[in-house]
Amino acid sequence: MNGAESLVHTLLQSGVDTCFTNPGTSEMHFVAALDRIPGMHCVLGLFEGVVTGAADGYARMSGKSAATLLHCGPGLANGMANLHNTRRAGGKMVNIVGDQATYHAPLDPPLTADAEGWARGVSGWVRTARDVATVGRDAAAAVQAAEAGNGTIATLILPSDTSWNPGGVVAAPLARIAAPLADPHQVEGAANVLRQGARAGAGEAMVLLLGGEALSETGLALAHRIAAATGCRLMAEGSNRRMARGQGRVAVERVPYVVDQAVAAMAPTRQLILAGSRKPVTFFAYPGKPQSSIPDAAEVQVLARPEQDAVDALARLADLLGAPAAAAPAYGPRPEIGRGAPTPESFAFTLAATMPEGAVIADESITFGRGFFANTRAAPAHDWLNVTGGAIGGGMPMATGAAVGAPGRRVINLQADGSAMYTLQSLWTQAREKLDVTTIIFSNRKYQILLGELANVGANPGRVALDMMDIGNPDLDWVGLARSMGVEGARAADCETVADLITSANRRSGPFLIELMI
Amino acid sequence: MNGAESLVHTLLQSGVDTCFTNPGTSEMHFVAALDRIPGMHCVLGLFEGVVTGAADGYARMSGKSAATLLHCGPGLANGMANLHNTRRAGGKMVNIVGDQATYHAPLDPPLTADAEGWARGVSGWVRTARDVATVGRDAAAAVQAAEAGNGTIATLILPSDTSWNPGGVVAAPLARIAAPLADPHQVEGAANVLRQGARAGAGEAMVLLLGGEALSETGLALAHRIAAATGCRLMAEGSNRRMARGQGRVAVERVPYVVDQAVAAMAPTRQLILAGSRKPVTFFAYPGKPQSSIPDAAEVQVLARPEQDAVDALARLADLLGAPAAAAPAYGPRPEIGRGAPTPESFAFTLAATMPEGAVIADESITFGRGFFANTRAAPAHDWLNVTGGAIGGGMPMATGAAVGAPGRRVINLQADGSAMYTLQSLWTQAREKLDVTTIIFSNRKYQILLGELANVGANPGRVALDMMDIGNPDLDWVGLARSMGVEGARAADCETVADLITSANRRSGPFLIELMI
Repeated sequence: MNGAESLVHTLLQSGVDTCFTNPGTSEMHFVAALDRIPGMHCVLGLFEGVVTGAADGYARMSGKSAATLLHCGPGLANGMANLHNTRRAGGKMVNIVGDQATYHAPLDPPLTADAEGWARGVSGWVRTARDVATVGRDAAAAVQAAEAGNGTIATLILPSDTSWNPGGVVAAPLARIAAPLADPHQVEGAANVLRQGARAGAGEAMVLLLGGEALSETGLALAHRIAAATGCRLMAEGSNRRMARGQGRVAVERVPYVVDQAVAAMAPTRQLILAGSRKPVTFFAYPGKPQSSIPDAAEVQVLARPEQDAVDALARLADLLGAPAAAAPAYGPRPEIGRGAPTPESFAFTLAATMPEGAVIADESITFGRGFFANTRAAPAHDWLNVTGGAIGGGMPMATGAAVGAPGRRVINLQADGSAMYTLQSLWTQAREKLDVTTIIFSNRKYQILLGELANVGANPGRVALDMMDIGNPDLDWVGLARSMGVEGARAADCETVADLITSANRRSGPFLIELMI
Repeated sequence: MNGAESLVHTLLQSGVDTCFTNPGTSEMHFVAALDRIPGMHCVLGLFEGVVTGAADGYARMSGKSAATLLHCGPGLANGMANLHNTRRAGGKMVNIVGDQATYHAPLDPPLTADAEGWARGVSGWVRTARDVATVGRDAAAAVQAAEAGNGTIATLILPSDTSWNPGGVVAAPLARIAAPLADPHQVEGAANVLRQGARAGAGEAMVLLLGGEALSETGLALAHRIAAATGCRLMAEGSNRRMARGQGRVAVERVPYVVDQAVAAMAPTRQLILAGSRKPVTFFAYPGKPQSSIPDAAEVQVLARPEQDAVDALARLADLLGAPAAAAPAYGPRPEIGRGAPTPESFAFTLAATMPEGAVIADESITFGRGFFANTRAAPAHDWLNVTGGAIGGGMPMATGAAVGAPGRRVINLQADGSAMYTLQSLWTQAREKLDVTTIIFSNRKYQILLGELANVGANPGRVALDMMDIGNPDLDWVGLARSMGVEGARAADCETVADLITSANRRSGPFLIELMI
């Protein structure tokens, strides 16, 4: 057995059975091993940003870590922006990065780069497999690291001779390491704050800020019990790995991206309780604007740090408070389809009116999407995934991987056009794998967010600046791009048409793209 | 004057007047400064791999360094594969990487990443501008570093407050630092080897291996004099920044990529003289195959290291040898257009028959291109650019930047389809800037090179492996992709049609794409 075979066997035995891949020469023995060893589902991406973003989306929906197969330092580099996003989401993944043979690297052949150094900035665990006898153990350790606690990125660098040499040994799976529990004083501290606030009628001055697993169906139900018992306000972080939403779930707003809106939204806060979340920080600094939306006067109480088990902490908090079971709030009837040209609000109603039960929303809608949340809470039960690290180009790969990780559920990718161009190769993988993804491109033909940012930093754009925000010269034809990669599509300019297209896409098997002119 | 304005003024005064850009929030003051300060040509790319690859192509053709404008660590990461290629080409560039404000970064907002650490692996010079008063001087130092000697990548990280604070000071340009000259003993050593070999009739056992500037028109003319006087063989490195070719220039073959071919090609070598080149190393190690194409018995003489002035060293060597002026070799008449389905050879003839005088060939043709060189030496004078670091996705951006850097010359991008998918967004920039680029996609719908590599490493591909080499399910429609980004195109399946399309593209202004079915 060679090293690559021991690696594939070990990954499978450790429960990793899906590999998003863009291989090169140094990974040929790994590829060959996949032929001889059944059980690994391999999904090809035509660019590594697709590969890593898809592995993230897969993990968000399946709960399992996928492997990626990347080619040397530059292949890793191509996937790094989405690894950054994954890291910010607390996501998990096992990267296998093929590299020069151990004895060849010192000769510095052209493709040699500092893969290990680059990997460190995006990984919680990095190792270079230097010995064929231990590559199996390295792989088991990588999976254990990736799945420890709330998850991390584990990167195993695999020199080609470690892969092809005989003497590989399959390693047994290592025990799963659970997320650490919150200390009792954390739970008691939060309970004291909430009890005092409840007695004083503090209401929305008490904010329970949810992140990570606290936004799962279970976490939200617990948070809802706590809110019903104490009057505290529930909020979510601005960008989240996965949030359960729709009928039967309590609706939670996110901290807004735009600083002024965020400051206004969080102004009443006097007590901030963090449940798997961090104290909000603005995405960027702006001259003369605050760096956090939370008032300086607010006190911060940590119920569960991001790496701790937030659901367990919420359960203990609810019990400590004696919070009774609370029926899910009713948000009224399902919205109706909007009319005419889409606004963020009317599109959101249209989406809520047409998304199927169990839909997965992969959201990289950027500016146009800011009105979506409030108006989709009465939709059927669904999950909502955000791009989490601010590196654009995460949406389409995430949708692709989410569809692999949640077969039978329709993924709806709400996608800004500028960001879509970063990783448009995703569409080809969707066509190849016949994935149930409906992509809705919000086609405003500009970097709309930057126009807002220019104003925010006090700059007054002239022609040169405006040119750099304008992606409409020439216009991109998204239906043509999709069709050229094997994905059917159509254009819409009003809510009625987009509703028809979403509905017909729900009924088909495989991907579809809607270019929505906004 | 704010920091951004002092930076733009300094870049312009230092001779950097072209900026390839994909800005974000942290670069908004830089963008605003471009409005107020005339003189910077800004070229927008829809993905950073386009931006960095284009800056490389621009420098290769203009001889000047371009600036890039990138957004934070992830924006840099997206451009890193082509920065790797640039580094391997000894190329020059000034990256401006916008980043979090100095006082905001410690709060670790979501987009924060280790931009400085990532930059180090691809840059010869890295600095973070921490003070508005010195950002002008930082910029002048960056340009000096980028253009020192044979060039390097200089990366200046620009926190947004350094950009927006008042107190910027424009810095005067710094003196250019020339490439170091070869020591006299290097030149004398090479002369001795060549004299002895000439006397002994060693002929092609003596190889003068050219790289970098040695492949310029001047360098080649000198090398030809030396070869004519001594009987030595001229060879070029496998991948080169820019090589002068065609009528009036001596034709020089490159060391082949495929190991067995390279070993056969270099087998006669007993004396290897390096002129701006490195001793060849195989791209990868393969079980049981040599790591260099040069026989172990060969002696190596360094006339000029890659960082030294190879043209000066060749001139001194030619003089020391008393090598007389030598007329450019005649390679016979210009080839005629091939017939029928294209082979590498018949396509090369077709290209030689149709390329205009002064064409710039941007070559990422990978496997299909291996027969092109020998059969294009009788073409009109042209320049040939290779992707140099082995990171695929360099060709289309390089062609884009080369067209910006060589106005009035037609760029012909010979482009493998798999690599093209990495950075296809380049086509949009070509359309927007109305660049004279003819892209010829070699559409074999597979990663052909990997099939060869699988065989090379001794693996026998089965269905899973073959699937990972197959990009034909679904087929990509390159004419449709191009048209959807504003570039007209057509399909060809025979030499006659491709000849007609190249010829008509030569006559148009702006880009055109030919999908050649091979």
